[in-house]
Amino acid sequence: MKKFFSVKDVDSVADVVQEALALKSSPFDFQELGKHKTLGLVFLNPSLRTRLSTQKAAMNLGMNVMVMNMDKDGWALETQDGIVMNGSTVEHIREAAAVMGEYCDILGLRSFPKLKDREEDYSEDLFNKFIKYCGVPVVSLESATRHPLQSLTDMITITEHKNVAKPKVVLAWAPHVKALPQAVPNSFAEWMCKAQEEGLVDFTIAQPMGYELSDDFTKGATISTNLNESLKGADFVYVKNWSSYKEYGEVYTVDEDWMMDNEKLAVTNSAKVMHCLPVRRDLELSSEILDGPNSLVIKEASNRVWAAQVVLKRMLEELG
Amino acid sequence: MKKFFSVKDVDSVADVVQEALALKSSPFDFQELGKHKTLGLVFLNPSLRTRLSTQKAAMNLGMNVMVMNMDKDGWALETQDGIVMNGSTVEHIREAAAVMGEYCDILGLRSFPKLKDREEDYSEDLFNKFIKYCGVPVVSLESATRHPLQSLTDMITITEHKNVAKPKVVLAWAPHVKALPQAVPNSFAEWMCKAQEEGLVDFTIAQPMGYELSDDFTKGATISTNLNESLKGADFVYVKNWSSYKEYGEVYTVDEDWMMDNEKLAVTNSAKVMHCLPVRRDLELSSEILDGPNSLVIKEASNRVWAAQVVLKRMLEELG
Amino acid sequence: MKKFFSVKDVDSVADVVQEALALKSSPFDFQELGKHKTLGLVFLNPSLRTRLSTQKAAMNLGMNVMVMNMDKDGWALETQDGIVMNGSTVEHIREAAAVMGEYCDILGLRSFPKLKDREEDYSEDLFNKFIKYCGVPVVSLESATRHPLQSLTDMITITEHKNVAKPKVVLAWAPHVKALPQAVPNSFAEWMCKAQEEGLVDFTIAQPMGYELSDDFTKGATISTNLNESLKGADFVYVKNWSSYKEYGEVYTVDEDWMMDNEKLAVTNSAKVMHCLPVRRDLELSSEILDGPNSLVIKEASNRVWAAQVVLKRMLEELG
Repeated sequence: MKKFFSVKDVDSVADVVQEALALKSSPFDFQELGKHKTLGLVFLNPSLRTRLSTQKAAMNLGMNVMVMNMDKDGWALETQDGIVMNGSTVEHIREAAAVMGEYCDILGLRSFPKLKDREEDYSEDLFNKFIKYCGVPVVSLESATRHPLQSLTDMITITEHKNVAKPKVVLAWAPHVKALPQAVPNSFAEWMCKAQEEGLVDFTIAQPMGYELSDDFTKGATISTNLNESLKGADFVYVKNWSSYKEYGEVYTVDEDWMMDNEKLAVTNSAKVMHCLPVRRDLELSSEILDGPNSLVIKEASNRVWAAQVVLKRMLEELG
Repeated sequence: MKKFFSVKDVDSVADVVQEALALKSSPFDFQELGKHKTLGLVFLNPSLRTRLSTQKAAMNLGMNVMVMNMDKDGWALETQDGIVMNGSTVEHIREAAAVMGEYCDILGLRSFPKLKDREEDYSEDLFNKFIKYCGVPVVSLESATRHPLQSLTDMITITEHKNVAKPKVVLAWAPHVKALPQAVPNSFAEWMCKAQEEGLVDFTIAQPMGYELSDDFTKGATISTNLNESLKGADFVYVKNWSSYKEYGEVYTVDEDWMMDNEKLAVTNSAKVMHCLPVRRDLELSSEILDGPNSLVIKEASNRVWAAQVVLKRMLEELG
Repeated sequence: MKKFFSVKDVDSVADVVQEALALKSSPFDFQELGKHKTLGLVFLNPSLRTRLSTQKAAMNLGMNVMVMNMDKDGWALETQDGIVMNGSTVEHIREAAAVMGEYCDILGLRSFPKLKDREEDYSEDLFNKFIKYCGVPVVSLESATRHPLQSLTDMITITEHKNVAKPKVVLAWAPHVKALPQAVPNSFAEWMCKAQEEGLVDFTIAQPMGYELSDDFTKGATISTNLNESLKGADFVYVKNWSSYKEYGEVYTVDEDWMMDNEKLAVTNSAKVMHCLPVRRDLELSSEILDGPNSLVIKEASNRVWAAQVVLKRMLEELG
């Protein structure tokens, strides 16, 4: 594995999930693989789960880890070519990425979208240039349009907790006070669509009018603006807010009640409830769900270690 | 040991001090104990000594360490229950603590008081919720009302440097330009009162009128507003500023001279001088003391490693 | 080696370069040397290459590393003696350095000049006090007047890439939008002058009138204000901006074109081009050079690991 950026970077969702679960049952089996190998984690934005779980995964594999907060420990990066650098950016991504690639065997990068210009964000320019110039395998720690470690974690968690061979999984939009990226729902959607192709799940997306995700991520999904209809018979409900893709970054007023609560869950098959965290309590999701027996959010966060570890393991195996 | 928050978390001050001194003489004896175990250090406020010495202690025990600056690397935490999270807090302590507990075998937390509302600070709400929700042993790296690693360090240092069986120890208030928490003096007082019960020290507190600490921490201590009287025959003088507990967080004008200097120390038994650091030179404590032979402040700071290491060792032993 | 601050801290440039190249060919040969030893890296200013490469070097030697961002994780340091600390500085360097020396076997410190007062900056007061009070070996991670790890790296890189026994090396001033320190060119000059004494290089400095460096660093160098003349026959061109030493920290308007490009390089002996990074593209140096076959900037940055590693190795050997 040379990069981990989208679901296209794995051949089989089923296989990578099984490999992750094997690591979970025996975390220190591959310490020789990471010996004398260094993981560099580059954060252009804040992180809690990703930061800690990826460090933990690397240490489980015997790797060294170096963390770099580029917004604070380092400096502003230029990404455009052919401009005279006489402004506020201090270093070009060509040099910064190449240099970090010299010090690290594998790099991880987190970079959020600006939510101003859809073409710019969806071009994944920064991420692609980072991959191009650093010369080593790169793990996405969340990019403008995707959060693949989260989606792999989610699939691991669904696999562990399913009670039927092919569970019904519903991605349900929820309210928020801020305009959030589409990265988590995009990524979840593309992983679930692939899992559906593999016969692992049945996938539905429910969102208010205007909040449709890009077609590039949702091919094969059942898409609806009727929350109650979508939830019927669901085995897993994945709650998440996102801003509009069509009117890019917009937040529309939604008159109906989309906050997830036990009343809405009544039509499900005693659905387990998931969220990538951080979650706004009683705005996205009711406290009664989060503190109740059907919440998987902590177990889901816990599985971030195994998602990261299987990705790093595959990269290390190719490094030789 | 499931938590290290106050003196109540140790059975015997004498025993824990002896165990720390044994580690000091042989720092790497327990490297197997920490193998594949991870310490997470969570800082909601700045730290130098605590940050470095606790990392060092964990590495001496063979542990991995992950450091999280929650004010910068992460985000603002909500602690109240039953509110709609539509404001500036991004994550509830219930989730944040639980998630960190999934990635770490032991957690350390630093959180200063706000010094606005005494009930709130002294309830130790954040700290108690962190312990409750994280599900793993927790070491206080200083909380609103206590700094137990500092106090254990102080007792180790007194034990190493005493020339009499039962030295007289004086906690002496000193001036400062800012309103400081009572955490260090509270903690020092409760540890010295316990040490006095065990027959290890004779403990006196000297402070100006209005600066009395809470009774909960000072039971058994001799308390005086006369600095010169208190210092007579002292073997150790522990200098520290704090703001008022009674008029919570207030700083009164003090007419007498409470800055510690060699002239005031003349009535002592060639007392050794201690301070938790950072110290304001020539405001709390004279440079002549700090740069002279009777200062223990650097040795005291150095002992922070062994205080942290004995606490982590005891926690690791119970983890099995 | 007790400190690494200037070229005077090495006996022979040739020897230290050869030792570094031996480490490069066999990075993990000295893991026992660093076992149970701790490197503390203290940053008063931002850092990317130095931060990562020095960590990497220490881990290659089997050391533990603790990183301290004093501007953010810690607090403001006082350096003056004999003043009452009732202002904004929270801790005196006497205590801060001594305490860090207790927790670490070797310390690294980065501190930039303020570029306001030449006497103050060139006295290296902070750095010297840090060395004096910490009590352990200190590696400069760049100080007010020097960046020795960079210069050692540069000499390693020149040694690897030279095609003639005694290459001509030209340090060429280049434009910038900000007033930069003289640390990198000072340091490069003193290392090249020493290398010239050892018969390793022929060293020339080219800069516009008014940008002359201090004589203390340039003894033996050919110094010219004619860029074209200086470049003739050059084997290595080291491009770098700096502000005026004479009119301290000033930036003069320079009418001629000093940005390095392929046209100017035409008179060289197919010179390899070097820069310490970060570089302002098409302001200091043309993109065509940076993206072309003659640029050494990434290899140079990569060699930072071996410069740091040889210095740490020598310090560890003396620690015993």
